Order: sequence, then structure tokens, then C-alpha cells
Amino acid sequence: MGKEIERKFLVDKAKWETFKKDLKAEKVQMIQAYIGRTALQTSPVRIKSKAGKESAYFTIKGNTKGITRSEFEYEIPVADAKAMIAEFCSKHIDKVRFTFDFQGTTWEVDEFTSPKAGLILAEVELKTENEEVEYPDFITQDVSTDPQYFNVNML
Amino acid sequence: MGKEIERKFLVDKAKWETFKKDLKAEKVQMIQAYIGRTALQTSPVRIKSKAGKESAYFTIKGNTKGITRSEFEYEIPVADAKAMIAEFCSKHIDKVRFTFDFQGTTWEVDEFTSPKAGLILAEVELKTENEEVEYPDFITQDVSTDPQYFNVNML
Repeated sequence: MGKEIERKFLVDKAKWETFKKDLKAEKVQMIQAYIGRTALQTSPVRIKSKAGKESAYFTIKGNTKGITRSEFEYEIPVADAKAMIAEFCSKHIDKVRFTFDFQGTTWEVDEFTSPKAGLILAEVELKTENEEVEYPDFITQDVSTDPQYFNVNML
Repeated sequence: MGKEIERKFLVDKAKWETFKKDLKAEKVQMIQAYIGRTALQTSPVRIKSKAGKESAYFTIKGNTKGITRSEFEYEIPVADAKAMIAEFCSKHIDKVRFTFDFQGTTWEVDEFTSPKAGLILAEVELKTENEEVEYPDFITQDVSTDPQYFNVNML
């Protein structure tokens, strides 16, 4: 169990492409679907594929209060995740996630393939809501609390 | 991941009390709540307490087809389960589960405390839908497919 404190931003594509050129980032293919959703939580299941190696996670995320929410995440067998998505999820998100360090902070940039092809979002996980971090130059609008950019709303 | 093939029965209380007298059964206090429910699945979280020792499980169960359904069960930290129930579940079931062997088959008898105080249900997990097993004498009506006896419908 934990708390997730996260800021999310839109990205200037041209600047991100330039930034990405010399970037040493972990690059992961992700499939993300939702087992369920209530007024109080969402339950994403994710399959990550990195250099041909797959791993899978089941998560329960509470409602966002400010930019903070509770998060319960468990690694599960990849075969379970595939069977769950096949049985319980009519739709899923495909995206590529780049994870890298910028000025001492870990950033994740998601390039969406389907749906929302072309959308790019950058996320930074903070230790406190007021933590000050350095922002890369490709960051534009803060959309942390905008529901249209919640992954669960993209399906 | 697995398949759960289960028959569920109402219980004759007097005969069960007699049967129970000499029974060597594992007796577990259970708290059961639901994180979510969609048309395709239910997601129970359970805390089991046996001789003062607690354990917790998160499960995703598919729809029952006949008496079979898919089941994905994971042991999780007890603290996670307690936090999930507090944040995501307005209600929960309290019951006492007796687990014992009868004629080579494992039976579970649930005595409900809240809600449905006084309700007793017996369950047997089968290897195939047509497996023949010996039935204890306290078994009465087969309610395997009766939605009013699904735990998720008791809350």
C-alpha cells in the first residue's frame, strides 16, 4: 500500500523529440486495461514488455484528492493478466513509456498508440504535494487534475 | 489463475450442530468485502483470522457459467486489505468458516454473523462439474446457481 503523489503534463512534441534524441531512457511497451471502476476506485491491470521480457501488475487506485491518491500494486503472473484482460476488459490502452532521470527526479513520458494515438503525457511522482522539481523544457500545460487525461477515461 | 467449480447448499441447522460436535475442522473468522463489481466480475477482499493469526487475499472472480467460474486469487498484506476495506467498501460480511474433510472431499461451511445472521451455507469444490461426491447428512437444497446466496448480493 502506498500514496501516489503525481503531476501530469502535456508535452510539446517537437521539443520532446529533440530531448529524446540523446536520452538514455528505459523504454517499455505497455498494455493497460481496467478490470473495474467504482465511485471510489479504479482497478487497472498492466502488462509491461521490455526487451522481450514481460511482467504484469494489478493495481487498485483510490480517488485523487488534490494530486494524491492511495495505490495498492501487486505483481501478478503475466498469464493471469492476459486471461483477465481477455475475460473482463472489452478495451485496452497501448502506449510506450519512457522512464528517465531529469535533474535528480524520475520522469515518465507516455506516448499513446491506441486509443488517443499521438497523445503524449509526462508524469513526475513527488514525495510531497509541494515538492519543487526541475521541469524539462518539453513540458507544457499541467493537466494533473483534468479527468480527460486520466487513463481510465480514455477507453 | 484457475477455475472454481463449486456446489453450494443450504444446511439443516440441527443436523449441522450434531455433525459439528465431534468435528475436527479448521475454524476461521472471515471478513469479506467487495472492492468492485461489473457485469463481468466481482472483486472480493478477504481477511482471515485463525487462532489470532491474520492473512488476507484479493480475488477476482468471473461470472458463473453453470457452476464454473474463473478465479484469480492473490495473498496480500493484511494492512493493505484493512486499508482497502476502509477506503473502498461501505459494507462487509462477517462469517465463520469451518473447513474439513468428508469422505475424501474438502467441505467449507460458512456460518454468517452479519448481515444474514443465522444463515449457514455449505460449499464443496469439485474437480469437474460432474464429479460425484458423498454428501454430509446436514445438506439440504442445492443453491449453487441462486443469486440470493452469492456473497456479493448479501451486502
